[in-house]
Amino acid sequence: MKQFMDEDFLLMNDTAKTLYHDYAAKMPIIDYHCHVSPQEIFEDKAFENITEVWLGGDHYKWRMIRAMGVDEKYITGDSTAKEKFDAFAKALPYAIGNPLYHWTHLELKRYFDCDLPLNEKNADEIWEICNKKLQSGFTVRKIIEASGVTHICTTDDPIDNLEWHKKIAADDTFKTVVLPAFRPDKAVNVHKEGFKDYLLKLGEAAGVEIKTLDDVKTALGKRIQFFDDMGCVASDHGLDYIPCLDDEVLAEAALAKVLVGEVPSVKETEAYITSILTYCGKEYARRGWVMQYHFGAIRSVNTERFKQLGPDTGFDTISTRDNSEKLVQILDLLKEKNGKLPKTIIYSLNPNDDAMIGAAIGAFQGTEVPGQIQHGSAWWFNDTKAGMEKQMKTLASLGVLSNFVGMLTDSRSFLSYTRHEYFRRILCNMLGTWVEEGMYPNDLEFLGQVVQDISYNNAIRYMGLKA
Amino acid sequence: MKQFMDEDFLLMNDTAKTLYHDYAAKMPIIDYHCHVSPQEIFEDKAFENITEVWLGGDHYKWRMIRAMGVDEKYITGDSTAKEKFDAFAKALPYAIGNPLYHWTHLELKRYFDCDLPLNEKNADEIWEICNKKLQSGFTVRKIIEASGVTHICTTDDPIDNLEWHKKIAADDTFKTVVLPAFRPDKAVNVHKEGFKDYLLKLGEAAGVEIKTLDDVKTALGKRIQFFDDMGCVASDHGLDYIPCLDDEVLAEAALAKVLVGEVPSVKETEAYITSILTYCGKEYARRGWVMQYHFGAIRSVNTERFKQLGPDTGFDTISTRDNSEKLVQILDLLKEKNGKLPKTIIYSLNPNDDAMIGAAIGAFQGTEVPGQIQHGSAWWFNDTKAGMEKQMKTLASLGVLSNFVGMLTDSRSFLSYTRHEYFRRILCNMLGTWVEEGMYPNDLEFLGQVVQDISYNNAIRYMGLKA
Amino acid sequence: MKQFMDEDFLLMNDTAKTLYHDYAAKMPIIDYHCHVSPQEIFEDKAFENITEVWLGGDHYKWRMIRAMGVDEKYITGDSTAKEKFDAFAKALPYAIGNPLYHWTHLELKRYFDCDLPLNEKNADEIWEICNKKLQSGFTVRKIIEASGVTHICTTDDPIDNLEWHKKIAADDTFKTVVLPAFRPDKAVNVHKEGFKDYLLKLGEAAGVEIKTLDDVKTALGKRIQFFDDMGCVASDHGLDYIPCLDDEVLAEAALAKVLVGEVPSVKETEAYITSILTYCGKEYARRGWVMQYHFGAIRSVNTERFKQLGPDTGFDTISTRDNSEKLVQILDLLKEKNGKLPKTIIYSLNPNDDAMIGAAIGAFQGTEVPGQIQHGSAWWFNDTKAGMEKQMKTLASLGVLSNFVGMLTDSRSFLSYTRHEYFRRILCNMLGTWVEEGMYPNDLEFLGQVVQDISYNNAIRYMGLKA
Repeated sequence: MKQFMDEDFLLMNDTAKTLYHDYAAKMPIIDYHCHVSPQEIFEDKAFENITEVWLGGDHYKWRMIRAMGVDEKYITGDSTAKEKFDAFAKALPYAIGNPLYHWTHLELKRYFDCDLPLNEKNADEIWEICNKKLQSGFTVRKIIEASGVTHICTTDDPIDNLEWHKKIAADDTFKTVVLPAFRPDKAVNVHKEGFKDYLLKLGEAAGVEIKTLDDVKTALGKRIQFFDDMGCVASDHGLDYIPCLDDEVLAEAALAKVLVGEVPSVKETEAYITSILTYCGKEYARRGWVMQYHFGAIRSVNTERFKQLGPDTGFDTISTRDNSEKLVQILDLLKEKNGKLPKTIIYSLNPNDDAMIGAAIGAFQGTEVPGQIQHGSAWWFNDTKAGMEKQMKTLASLGVLSNFVGMLTDSRSFLSYTRHEYFRRILCNMLGTWVEEGMYPNDLEFLGQVVQDISYNNAIRYMGLKA
Repeated sequence: MKQFMDEDFLLMNDTAKTLYHDYAAKMPIIDYHCHVSPQEIFEDKAFENITEVWLGGDHYKWRMIRAMGVDEKYITGDSTAKEKFDAFAKALPYAIGNPLYHWTHLELKRYFDCDLPLNEKNADEIWEICNKKLQSGFTVRKIIEASGVTHICTTDDPIDNLEWHKKIAADDTFKTVVLPAFRPDKAVNVHKEGFKDYLLKLGEAAGVEIKTLDDVKTALGKRIQFFDDMGCVASDHGLDYIPCLDDEVLAEAALAKVLVGEVPSVKETEAYITSILTYCGKEYARRGWVMQYHFGAIRSVNTERFKQLGPDTGFDTISTRDNSEKLVQILDLLKEKNGKLPKTIIYSLNPNDDAMIGAAIGAFQGTEVPGQIQHGSAWWFNDTKAGMEKQMKTLASLGVLSNFVGMLTDSRSFLSYTRHEYFRRILCNMLGTWVEEGMYPNDLEFLGQVVQDISYNNAIRYMGLKA
Repeated sequence: MKQFMDEDFLLMNDTAKTLYHDYAAKMPIIDYHCHVSPQEIFEDKAFENITEVWLGGDHYKWRMIRAMGVDEKYITGDSTAKEKFDAFAKALPYAIGNPLYHWTHLELKRYFDCDLPLNEKNADEIWEICNKKLQSGFTVRKIIEASGVTHICTTDDPIDNLEWHKKIAADDTFKTVVLPAFRPDKAVNVHKEGFKDYLLKLGEAAGVEIKTLDDVKTALGKRIQFFDDMGCVASDHGLDYIPCLDDEVLAEAALAKVLVGEVPSVKETEAYITSILTYCGKEYARRGWVMQYHFGAIRSVNTERFKQLGPDTGFDTISTRDNSEKLVQILDLLKEKNGKLPKTIIYSLNPNDDAMIGAAIGAFQGTEVPGQIQHGSAWWFNDTKAGMEKQMKTLASLGVLSNFVGMLTDSRSFLSYTRHEYFRRILCNMLGTWVEEGMYPNDLEFLGQVVQDISYNNAIRYMGLKA
């Protein structure tokens, strides 16, 4: 029997162990897609207790505690930090097979030198251990440095003035590169509440009075340039589903309707989104940015909780809607209209989309970089051992695994970098198993390089950054 | 090499064996969702031969024999019982990898003390062994008792007078609790043949003259109360797909059209179904009932066979239609309209829906009971080893496996209780493997409790029954 | 550690090894679905170099090289054969986990007695080894004979005069039976470019002036008879998606519109396709032909490359559209209209369709042959180890694996017959593992027969051919 989460956790054979310990473990981290706060990085936030850093915004954990029948008071409500921690500690042992179980214990081990399993009995002791460490100067920057993170791409609205990124860049005492990423969802979602108000703010930020579709594009273009000036190398689009309706007249009509308080039709909405995506794609491509599309989430489905708690609080679900035709159509449209596709990463929340995405990216590869069009890492609902293996095996069988840009945390917490360790162990175990089973030659030097590339080098190269 | 289906069948390591033999095996059975006949239980039916109990209504077996190219005469036709048994015996060895192969041999072992593999050669001997046992007083009640079944929930139409449930309840000589479950599909499916006639019967049963939508609800409400008085704790809705159109005017129009012999539109139909589901949900919630929704089946697709044999004869298939948006919409609608959701179990026949359901239930959990919203067990086309593992691993990765209410037979046969054994072995093997691979602490006491909870205790608690 | 691709490649236990070496390996090959050129067979084409036979038309390989960021010049462009080979050799090692990696090395081993791993370093040596063998009289016929192929079904248009099939049949020096297969896609796709022109050619080939829907059917019927006279036993329909709209008036309207240069509506198109499929199904059924439906591909999605390179050049992707309802509807329609279904094989490019197809075929089995309705082998994007296992396990769990007609290459290359070896090893490993794990009795004689049946005998019997 293997010991619980020992140094060979997830590594089921010798080749896997060698690949992980001799190659993967020593690589730094680039976290090219996450939701941490640049302000907290600049201000080097200190945490009073483990609840703050662990349970403050992590809706993965909230969902799990809710499934135990626990009252919201002990999750996002007005109970004390210790009560919330206790609710989590009590629930966790029941979450057998949930990646939270592994992430939690990896975080305890790596950040708090604590090997205890978290449960009701150990809760007080672990509470003390963690808080002591956090209060002893284990601040945001220390956590990032201890994790070996060389680059972070945050997620930022086009209207953001990026003041914290500027300040971080100007601060020589912090080595990790913190870059913004451009997420213009609010300018894309013409059909959603608040769009009209948002346009005002966007116009203000860009110094453009927005009356037409061209004005929206001009404003976005200016903000893209501003982000580019700030070192941005990636955008991110969260799409309810992939539309593709190339019709500028309908697109203009969508905007016109919203500006006079009317609701655009589905076709007008799709035409507007298509038009903005096409424009943005061109701007990304000519700057060498990476474009990220992700879809397959249905957001804030619980009305009562949305009214109480707002978005991103653990009430999103998976959409199984078919996006296969529109996905290849919009990639083709961008290529036809703009002359070329930017480097592109496609993610779906729906694990059934793995093969579809794997096949789609294979039809649009280019020569800008190996693996120009990527199938993004299994994340959110899918960043489990099984989910990651499925994504990588599908990618491998339909394309070239070695070019994969690998893991991202997509996290709101500074303690999530151990997910890169989780991913690397799974990667090394998969490759090691293939070697041990006679499926690939036992060429450790070559495979070690592949492991290091997928762990770090590919993403650095792909994003055009310096290691 | 492991021996074929020995005592450690499906248990691939020591932890799995301990969990099964020391914890799971000793638990009684609650079969909270099945299609056995309460009349046959009350009358303690005796079987003349194994064909009667095995092949009388089991369309899983019929499909398998049909796939061998066997004439319908030897399946549901006018051949003798022995000829039908022989057709099955001859076919079975070819069904390698079909769960029928395992179920059949589990049933031979547990009910008939017979370790012979069923095939053409052994057919006569097994025919004798089984019939001898069946004719020696191995009646329906004896089978149920021998299986350790403490509770059975049958499936019953709202118009049923539940006379057999009453008689069973009044019979002190039978310890197993047999409860009705409320399945109002015929009152829901406004668009299907026979709906108008059914309304007459429903009205009669409820003492309500049905002219309006409110009358339908009043009638259903009365029958729900009648079922409740009879101890019912669960309802069951088989839906072609999940609709969600909250419009009482359209719903009323659907009913009005049907009452004058017209066909309601798709929108009217969906509005009617939504309205009835919403009403029923409220009535279930206030009584603490469990609401079951299942979808993903396309029924009776073979017209010729449907005309010959009627429904539920092995001609249903899997729908891969997208239900993801409507599922979360209708759960949200019930919650918004009624103030709360009943305890709810969601099942799909489409195995691709596992992750979607796992994510959806996580957005609607409540505090009535741990795991208030459940992802139902892999069943029908999916109650295979791989199907059960996939359902449980998905559930585990997206929520809390420990709260799972576990297995049901969904069966029309009294010999199917060994499917609970099949499920428990698979559950114990999964958990045992996680421990052996260092994925979970080796805490047998805790895991043993989890195994017993999923095997029995959770369902008892969830249904509000007494163990 | 198992050696890389040794004689026990993919065989992970003793039972698997016995089943493969003692039963599967000795069976001949029937390749009942492929795209090789009958002209090249008749003319016994000789290859100048390995690039010609390996990279000349294999878009699987092209896609993989493109994913490496290689310029099209070195893939389908005007570079030299050696440059193209070098590009492939350089790329291949990175394609860890891609079935191409295994296929390539199986082909090197079986056809060129070469055990070297293909990479940049070994490229020159392997180039020499392969070319020497090819230039030493290792022609198309020699390759086919060396592969043990007894039957080949090519893929042919209804207007084809089958001259090469005639010549091959008349040539006593070649033992392999080469039959045409009837693929009338161009006569089905009323909505696609070139349809009107095609009708002219079809009319000419059949000696029918096509003005009405009946004329199309008459012409197709004549060509079916001609193919039948030439020994054809199978048809093949590639469908964008499965339609089912039984309306002869709409169907006639579709044709009428196209004949006057108008575009038929979606409904008219679907009615036309339904009408033709129904007619063809009847003609196939009465001749005992096998009907193949495959769907789930989106073709030629990259406009730029389509204009440069045409169809079938590696720019097709997977559709995840729901076909479940229409699939069972059209099978039922054919059965109702024509009195019976032909032997039918259903394939989808979308691996998520496995369970849906497995359930659908179970509702339409007949008595013409065991497994009259088949779930076709995992192919194209799915002919990986995982894909084949998933298709076979799903088929096994929902029906009778033993009746499976097994593997096909679907290939344009004469070196692809080793994919049958790949499939058989995977099949034997799956069955062997089940035995070793106590899931099936250790009856090697019976299982050996099953393996031989799935490898060869079933397809021969199913197609009505002589072994």
